[in-house]
Amino acid sequence: MSTHKKTMSGLRLYPDPLELRFETLPIPEITHPDDAIVKVTLAGLCGSDLHAYRGLEPFDIPYITGHELVGIVVSLGKNFQKAVAGRPDLYSTLKVGDKVVSPFTSSCGECRPCRIGFTARCDDSLLFGSPRLPGAQAQYIRIPRAGGTLFKIPQDESILGTEPVARVRTSDASLILLADILPTGYFAALQAIQHPNLAYAFAHKSFPVIPRFVSAFITGGESIKVEEDDAKLAFAVVGLGPVGLCALVSLVELLSLTGTPNFAIVAVDPNEARRTKAENILATLGSSPGGVIRVASVEDAPRVSKELSGGLGCDAILEVVGNNSALQLAYELVRPFGVISSVGVHTHPQFPLNGDALYSKNVSLAFGRCPVRSIFPYCIELLMSHQDIFSVGGAAGLIDKIVPFDEASVKEAYRMFNEGKCGKVLFQMSSD
Amino acid sequence: MSTHKKTMSGLRLYPDPLELRFETLPIPEITHPDDAIVKVTLAGLCGSDLHAYRGLEPFDIPYITGHELVGIVVSLGKNFQKAVAGRPDLYSTLKVGDKVVSPFTSSCGECRPCRIGFTARCDDSLLFGSPRLPGAQAQYIRIPRAGGTLFKIPQDESILGTEPVARVRTSDASLILLADILPTGYFAALQAIQHPNLAYAFAHKSFPVIPRFVSAFITGGESIKVEEDDAKLAFAVVGLGPVGLCALVSLVELLSLTGTPNFAIVAVDPNEARRTKAENILATLGSSPGGVIRVASVEDAPRVSKELSGGLGCDAILEVVGNNSALQLAYELVRPFGVISSVGVHTHPQFPLNGDALYSKNVSLAFGRCPVRSIFPYCIELLMSHQDIFSVGGAAGLIDKIVPFDEASVKEAYRMFNEGKCGKVLFQMSSD
Repeated sequence: MSTHKKTMSGLRLYPDPLELRFETLPIPEITHPDDAIVKVTLAGLCGSDLHAYRGLEPFDIPYITGHELVGIVVSLGKNFQKAVAGRPDLYSTLKVGDKVVSPFTSSCGECRPCRIGFTARCDDSLLFGSPRLPGAQAQYIRIPRAGGTLFKIPQDESILGTEPVARVRTSDASLILLADILPTGYFAALQAIQHPNLAYAFAHKSFPVIPRFVSAFITGGESIKVEEDDAKLAFAVVGLGPVGLCALVSLVELLSLTGTPNFAIVAVDPNEARRTKAENILATLGSSPGGVIRVASVEDAPRVSKELSGGLGCDAILEVVGNNSALQLAYELVRPFGVISSVGVHTHPQFPLNGDALYSKNVSLAFGRCPVRSIFPYCIELLMSHQDIFSVGGAAGLIDKIVPFDEASVKEAYRMFNEGKCGKVLFQMSSD
Repeated sequence: MSTHKKTMSGLRLYPDPLELRFETLPIPEITHPDDAIVKVTLAGLCGSDLHAYRGLEPFDIPYITGHELVGIVVSLGKNFQKAVAGRPDLYSTLKVGDKVVSPFTSSCGECRPCRIGFTARCDDSLLFGSPRLPGAQAQYIRIPRAGGTLFKIPQDESILGTEPVARVRTSDASLILLADILPTGYFAALQAIQHPNLAYAFAHKSFPVIPRFVSAFITGGESIKVEEDDAKLAFAVVGLGPVGLCALVSLVELLSLTGTPNFAIVAVDPNEARRTKAENILATLGSSPGGVIRVASVEDAPRVSKELSGGLGCDAILEVVGNNSALQLAYELVRPFGVISSVGVHTHPQFPLNGDALYSKNVSLAFGRCPVRSIFPYCIELLMSHQDIFSVGGAAGLIDKIVPFDEASVKEAYRMFNEGKCGKVLFQMSSD
């Protein structure tokens, strides 16, 4: 490490009493040959940080909070700079001084779940900012399984994944959105639009539309043409916090690019400031050919959903809140044979829907954590093409503000964010 | 109608006291120009008939039971024999004397849900054998929306759907399986194998694999090759009653046809007689190249599932029971990012899994009633190619027996089926 400092500032959440403490802590060190130490440039505050802060997720030991970061590699374990067949490329290419983004969970890139793309459920996966793995709201962070976990931001004409791409030209404040909220929002949209129960509108064929990679072996069956008037899709996005806004932008962009002339979206939140932000973002996106998008309160959502879907209900709901009232609203809005794509963290011990309700409406559901490491390559173009949205401030800027990483600012940010009085906040680390 | 009879035998379920009564009832008449009256040849007894019989589904008025039938058209409403643009073909082609199968729900074929293929949730859909629509366990039945609902069995070189096909050469006892259980089992399998979270194994690419009908507009992203060793799928079929056996056969056949060399299935039931029947059916199917199929008790299922999936758990569970212990077992067996395809009727007021459990394992679920009218064209070839399975008696015959439709036989069949002491039973109507 190029610094002689041994200590750093960091924020820890304590269980008893439940409180945040801004502390001086030891700088983490390499503990495994696959580790990297990253000097954090920016750390984010995310809605799911609030679950433990509010006492909804019990824990026993204090831990460094936060799971969103962009930073610079300052130290690498000895498994780096050695090309080993079958190991992620980054073990041979990552260097001290490289700029990196980390997904909010670690992933080895080598186990079967990682190899088939489900990196969020890597056999070795750990959540940053949890009792088991110190988080990003500190000046330095240790990244386990760093060759599989980290995503290197190319700073020149370089290689991104397997394809040569142009330099990723965007600010660190934008890049940090790749750590969680943009991929999570994109994942919410992708789980909906790629679901077989929505395929009728893209394929202009009636259900079941068999994807080509399995269709070779389906014999029999009728392929009934779906007329243009029927090939229209209606969606709801429930929750317009930062992740919900990312889901909304991802959905609009994906649908606009399809050339699908008929789509409708109702974007729902009880908070008026969030609805205004959504309106401003939609204005920035400009008109989508044929698409109708409405922003609505929770009370108005069922009526608007019916209006936009010809009375049938929405084909898919992107549920981006993670509580029972959001799930219940999603159920109310969804059409029979529709899809609820839920990416929020659910903590309520009781599920709000029963088997009879799910059977009676033929509901499909998808739950869980975004496999960020697999998804974020898909988001980079989206990120770069909407710098007015994926940036700080302005009417459409998705990030509300950047505040210095000091005790007063950090605690104030948690308080305001918890009370719904501000949007996305980033912490700027000092350069010392 | 060609008969001068005014009355028929029929079985009705009474609510208070809860009991079956074998009665003489009026023969139903055309009440709407879209109606057909069908003389029932065979009626089936289905597991879901037992929900109300057991008192698990409250109801207020007596009704004729049963929702599976094959029969002959004896009378048609005046909307038949008139070609009207936009109406289902059957309104102009169906004739008195034609052999028909009816799905277990009526569907108009004309509303938007029907047009896009979700016939089980037709705007006008009614369940046969329910308080709202008299059922098939009677000598005659009225079929509402008959041009949309019925499926005509071609008796010569004829037209099936839009394609010319050979005569459907099979017995009425086989044909009745098209009314519910074979399409429902096939649907359970189809919902699993066409789910995007299983696509990695067919496409040999890591998640997310974007179906071709939406992939045109996905930009960015890495396509990472999935090696042959990873492109293996593991399934569980939970419940080996008649629908579960249809699901198992559908799954094996679909997977065998893919040429996917690596698949594994664990077929689970607590009832030893059902497991033996499953073993006999599997023996009849012969060896599937590369596939491994094991039949297991509930206690053994988790161990076998781990063994067959290299410790990861099953990619998809076909849950064909419809109760909470089956759903809990499905959850236990499924891998992270796996799929639970549930086609059973759930009546328990409480869901056995909560949001945290579903989030923590990234579970996708699909619930509900099979859209039989859309699915059964896909099953006809399967039905005809396995007459040793989809027939009565023998070690592998899926139908246990055909009994006469008289009071003693019918009540005995309900009792035995309810106690798990017999398999699928059909009622043979008298020809008077």
